[in-house]
Formats: sequence, structure tokens, C-alpha cells
Amino acid sequence: MTARPANAHQAHILRLLRDEGPNSRAQLGELVDLSRSKLAVEVDRLMETGLVVNDGLAASRGGRRSHSLRLAPELRFLGIDIGATSADVAVTNAQLEVLGHLSQSVDVREGPVAVFEQVLDMAAKLRAAGIAEGFDGAGVGIPGPVRFPEGVPVAPPLMPGWDNFPVREALSQDLDCPVMVDNDVNLMALGEQQAGVARRVKDFLCVKIGTGIGCGIVVNGEVYRGVTGSAGDIGHIQVDAHGHPCPCGNSGCLEAHFSGAALARDALAESGHPGQLADRLAASGTLTAADVAAAAAAGDAVAGELIREGGSRVGQVIAALVSFFNPALVVVGGGVTGLGHGLLASIRTQVYRRSLPLATGDLPIVLSELGPQAGVVGAARLITDRVFSPA
Amino acid sequence: MTARPANAHQAHILRLLRDEGPNSRAQLGELVDLSRSKLAVEVDRLMETGLVVNDGLAASRGGRRSHSLRLAPELRFLGIDIGATSADVAVTNAQLEVLGHLSQSVDVREGPVAVFEQVLDMAAKLRAAGIAEGFDGAGVGIPGPVRFPEGVPVAPPLMPGWDNFPVREALSQDLDCPVMVDNDVNLMALGEQQAGVARRVKDFLCVKIGTGIGCGIVVNGEVYRGVTGSAGDIGHIQVDAHGHPCPCGNSGCLEAHFSGAALARDALAESGHPGQLADRLAASGTLTAADVAAAAAAGDAVAGELIREGGSRVGQVIAALVSFFNPALVVVGGGVTGLGHGLLASIRTQVYRRSLPLATGDLPIVLSELGPQAGVVGAARLITDRVFSPA
Repeated sequence: MTARPANAHQAHILRLLRDEGPNSRAQLGELVDLSRSKLAVEVDRLMETGLVVNDGLAASRGGRRSHSLRLAPELRFLGIDIGATSADVAVTNAQLEVLGHLSQSVDVREGPVAVFEQVLDMAAKLRAAGIAEGFDGAGVGIPGPVRFPEGVPVAPPLMPGWDNFPVREALSQDLDCPVMVDNDVNLMALGEQQAGVARRVKDFLCVKIGTGIGCGIVVNGEVYRGVTGSAGDIGHIQVDAHGHPCPCGNSGCLEAHFSGAALARDALAESGHPGQLADRLAASGTLTAADVAAAAAAGDAVAGELIREGGSRVGQVIAALVSFFNPALVVVGGGVTGLGHGLLASIRTQVYRRSLPLATGDLPIVLSELGPQAGVVGAARLITDRVFSPA
Repeated sequence: MTARPANAHQAHILRLLRDEGPNSRAQLGELVDLSRSKLAVEVDRLMETGLVVNDGLAASRGGRRSHSLRLAPELRFLGIDIGATSADVAVTNAQLEVLGHLSQSVDVREGPVAVFEQVLDMAAKLRAAGIAEGFDGAGVGIPGPVRFPEGVPVAPPLMPGWDNFPVREALSQDLDCPVMVDNDVNLMALGEQQAGVARRVKDFLCVKIGTGIGCGIVVNGEVYRGVTGSAGDIGHIQVDAHGHPCPCGNSGCLEAHFSGAALARDALAESGHPGQLADRLAASGTLTAADVAAAAAAGDAVAGELIREGGSRVGQVIAALVSFFNPALVVVGGGVTGLGHGLLASIRTQVYRRSLPLATGDLPIVLSELGPQAGVVGAARLITDRVFSPA
């Protein structure tokens, strides 16, 4: 069991060392606004817990050279990102640098027991590779709403067997470390904030387009989860009053018009005409969003149009959210970002045309920087936020 | 010039006395988590500034009876709420109780100088009535986006002459007191949080439907204004891809389909048929949203249908925002709430049908409790938040 900081000053020091890397005592003192003697007391206590260690002499700043401090190099955190059709598992050190990362296909519809068996196997493989002996904490993202304080999925659509499954408790026993659970989109936002395109941005949106569509909301540097943990659940916002039926029971939902699944469906419908989509269908017997991306990249006009239309639907919803939320940045990520800049251009067109100039004047709309690592880095960040808080 | 608290503890004490009323030292000590002796130091300093005074002996709690404390009864704050077609001005004491309230028609299109001349007249009338000698601060709401730190309107649509007008600076000189400026919808949200239906609610939305439509967003107890101050500007979210043209240049905007102005326009279009709307038009030569409300209340089917349709459009946007934001409460207010429960029913139907069950399970959608006083109370709250902060 990893020790926890005893007070807010210690927690602050730990997070600074996580986010800024090794630091001299002098610099730390300035950053946490503590006197030299008070800082020394807190640092000594942290060194007793083993969380913080000396890291050689820091560069001189004129006076006597002081030891640099860093987080213990043997600390290990596990980031687990479960999507509808795949799972990513990574091991990080305490500075959230990824030391090893595995990705494999899973099917969330098989239920939590089957999925976590695979995830624990992946963690065991990373351990067997010598990257970690044990884990000091694990963060887990799942593709549905989560009752955050308890770490339990709540009525996740299309995830039979997951409702109220005690993810946090079960994994915490299996891994013998503290565990935190969150919605996968929130973790993508945390990942981009920690190490990606949203570093130092306080108010931003992170739209993840994969099998479904969700949105991470960061307000004043913190993930906003809403009253019941369902904030950002934008996949069922209506984009067309007379639109496609959606498995949720309504019609015209964003997800029914654009998502990995909707794109595969539309590609199949267009595959009757000669072209790249038809060729790909003939070759593999099926069409996925990745096929549409590849066909569009190879210049297929029908595939390009499917992406433009889909981007326009997402852009329509993002335009409304930009008017409402007036963010500093919009990040677009998830599996469908393989669709690349064609998708982005189409989203931007809608947002810049439909949202108020005051809200879009300085608004960058960009692709995720971390890609498939965003979720696992965000998961590791989530659990370090917890472990580096006063007990 | 009113004194300001010297530190965060003093600020906390002042806000507690504002929100909870007179309190014994013993109770205050518990609420601010200060030792008896430290509390005594801070209270003594506040009494020296004249902001806090003794208020007789508090009820005994077993030990020696102590003096109750209260905010100085002579403190006076001005709440100014400027709408597109009317201005409300109220005087409150430091507990934000309204001591006098005037309302009159104004036209924001006449520009800030003309409007503030009228507003200052109203303030002078309230002063002449003996309610106040001078003002210790004034809060001002205007119906457009505001660069909050500077208290300056930014490119407000339909408000010629207001762009970059130094509202805060100008009024501060005229009134000889500190002034804060905000968007009118944010102040309505603050008012409902201070003394209305949103007391003790931390995450909620406040939708104001008047000449235009806007939304106040409260996150973790604080108004969220967005990166450029335009958060909540939902009037130009698209509700119909093939909808009415809007003065903003786009078409199908929410405001073009439902607002005071849109409702008057639609009522006029329907007034060719015999019925209450035709009668009212014949009698007064014009039709307003208030006519539609009165006709609907008297059972006119056409007026009722206009309200239902409009409510359905607003409900469509609120449904999307509820999915996105997952609030604990939605408050509906503004001039159009004269349309009453027909409007509310129509909004509720859309939201409960379109948003996810997890987000609507415990979600009340209610009318504003304070009505026309919400804005002025919110304005007074805004300036006391400022005046009761460390200098």
C-alpha cells in the first residue's frame, strides 16, 4: 500500500513533481509558497514515506547548491482504457510517462468479468516484461456513465451486465492497489490536459468519436461530471427531427447519424456503386469506419462525402456547445480521428459558420495529440490525483 | 468609500452574515472554522471598519450569552437590470433584502448614455424616497455579452453604441461607489441562487426568455462565463435547418423561432383568423407576447398552440443542454414566463422525452421564483461578492 500525503502542502508538492519533473528545493519553495523551513519539514515527511527521493545536486542559482527532488522512480501506475471494441492498458511512472502500452480487441458486451480477465492478463504481461513489480494505483475508463464517487457504471447503454458492477472494488482487490473509475471520455480529456494538446488550458471540450460519441468537459482545470455523472453524454442529442432511428428509442440522435457504427452502415449502403468501398467489401466481406478512412485517403469521392456529411452533423452539435460553453479549445479524438483532416475541416466549417463570432474568434479546433494514449495517460493521471491527495 | 475586508476570513464572515442573517459569535466560529480568539480578532477588525455591528444578545446555548453580530443596517446596494425594452432598479440592504424597486420602459437601442440617464433618475427617486442616502456598491446587468473583468459590453447584437462603452467606469463615477457589470442572464441565475428557487443548488441552468434568449450557467456554485464572456449565449443555436432567417445572418436560430419578438410576429401572422388575437389586434393596433399569453389564458386555441410550439423549440435546445451539462435544476424565467405553465409543460415534454433518463431522473424544471426581482437581487449579490472580498 502506497503512503498518502498527510496534508494539502504535501499533496501540492507531489503533484508539482509529477507535472513539472525533478525540481530544486528552492524552486519548489517558490511554487508552493512555503518558507524554507516549513518546506523542509514537509519534504522530510514525504521522504520518510518513500514517495519523494533526492535526485542529485540541482544547478546552482547563485547560492549553495541544493539537492534536486523527484518522485520515487519505482512508483508504477496502471492506466486502463476500455472502449466498446478494444482495451488499452499502459504502465506509467509517477511522472505519467508511458513505460509500456498494450492494446487488444475486446467486446464490452461480453460483460465485466470477461473483459477484466483480459485486462488483467494484459497487466500481467506488462509486469512480466519487467516494467513493473506491482502497482501503486490504477485508473480505469469505461465507455458509459459512471457514478464517480463509488466507481460503478450506471445504466450504460449497450453494455449488458455492467450496470452497478463494482468495478473499483473488484479491480482494487485483483490489483492490490487503489483504483478510480471514470467515463472514458473524461479520461481522454485528462490525458490531453496532462500531456497533450490541452496542457495549461483551463476550460475546454474534448469530443471523442468512436463506436459512440461523448464529450469531456473541463471547467477551471477540473473535469465536470454533472450531477449524476452523465455530463458530456452528447451522443443522443437530436440532429435531425426526421432522422435515423437510434437504439435508445428516439430518432435523429447524433450517434445514429455519425459514429463508427453509423459510418460502417452508411458505407455498406453506398457499396452497391463501383468504387473503393465496393472493392473493399468484396475483398474482406465487411466494411468498417477504417475502410471509409482508407478509401477517402485514396481519393474515393463517396467515402469523402460520407466523412464530410458526418463531420457536418458533429459540427452542428459542437457549434451549439461552443455557443453554450464558450471554451478556449475543442479537441477531437477517438477511433474515428483516423478520418483525419477531412473530418476536422467539416467540423470547423459548421462551428465557425454557426457559433457566435465572440465564441469562435480565438477558438482552436484540433485533433487529439496523444491519440490512443490519451485515455491511458488520463487514467493514470486520475489515480495519481487520488493517491497524491491527503488521505 | 466602503471599507473592504482585509483577508479571506473576514470576507467569509461578511458573506455568512449576508446569506444567513445575524448570527452569534459562537455559531460564526463554527461556520468559519476559527478558534474563539482568532474569530474575536477578525470580528473586532470588521467592527472597526463599520461593516459589522452588534445586534443585541443572542439566545443562550448553555453558556454565557454572547452578542449577536450583523452587517451594518445602513449599508445600501443598488441592483440594476437592463433588458432590451425595460430597466429595473432596486435598493437592497446588505442581506440583499429589496427595500425599494422601480421598473420602467427603456429602449437599449437608444444607446448607453440615454439609458443610464434614465437608470440614474430611477436611483435618484429611490434615494429621494428616503430608502438610501448613498450607495455602497452597484451591480448592473445588460442584455448582451460582457468582458467581465473590465465591465464592458462586447459586440452586443442589437445594442448600437454599447460596444466597448465603459459601463463600469462611467457608473462608478456617477454613483460614487464600486460597480460590477455582467450579462443579465448571469444575474438572474445569481438572484435565484441567492433568494429564489436555486438556493443551495450548486450546478444548474437558468434559461431567460425575453426579447432574446440566454442561459446562465452555474458550476459548483459559481457563474461560469466562458473564455470570452459569451457562455450561455444559446439564442443562436440552430433549431431548424430550413428555419426562419435571423438578424444574426444565419437562419433557423432559436431566437428567430421563439422569443418575445418571434412570438409577436407569429401572433400577427395568425391574427387574420377570427379569435382573441384578431380582437386584441383590432383593439390596440399591435400584438405582443403579453397578448398571446392573455389570449391563451382565456382559452384561445391558436395562442395556446403558438406557446406550445415555441416551448417545444426551447425544450429541444434545453434537452441538448441537459444531456451535455447534466444539471441538478433548470430554471425558466424572463418576460415570456408570463406564458406560464403551458410553456413549462411544453418544455418539460421535450426534455423528458429527448434527454437521457440518467440526466432527467431527478431533474426539476421550474419557473423562476423571483420573477422580475431575480435580476436586481442578482446584481446586488454580484457587487456584494466584490465588496465583501479582500481588497
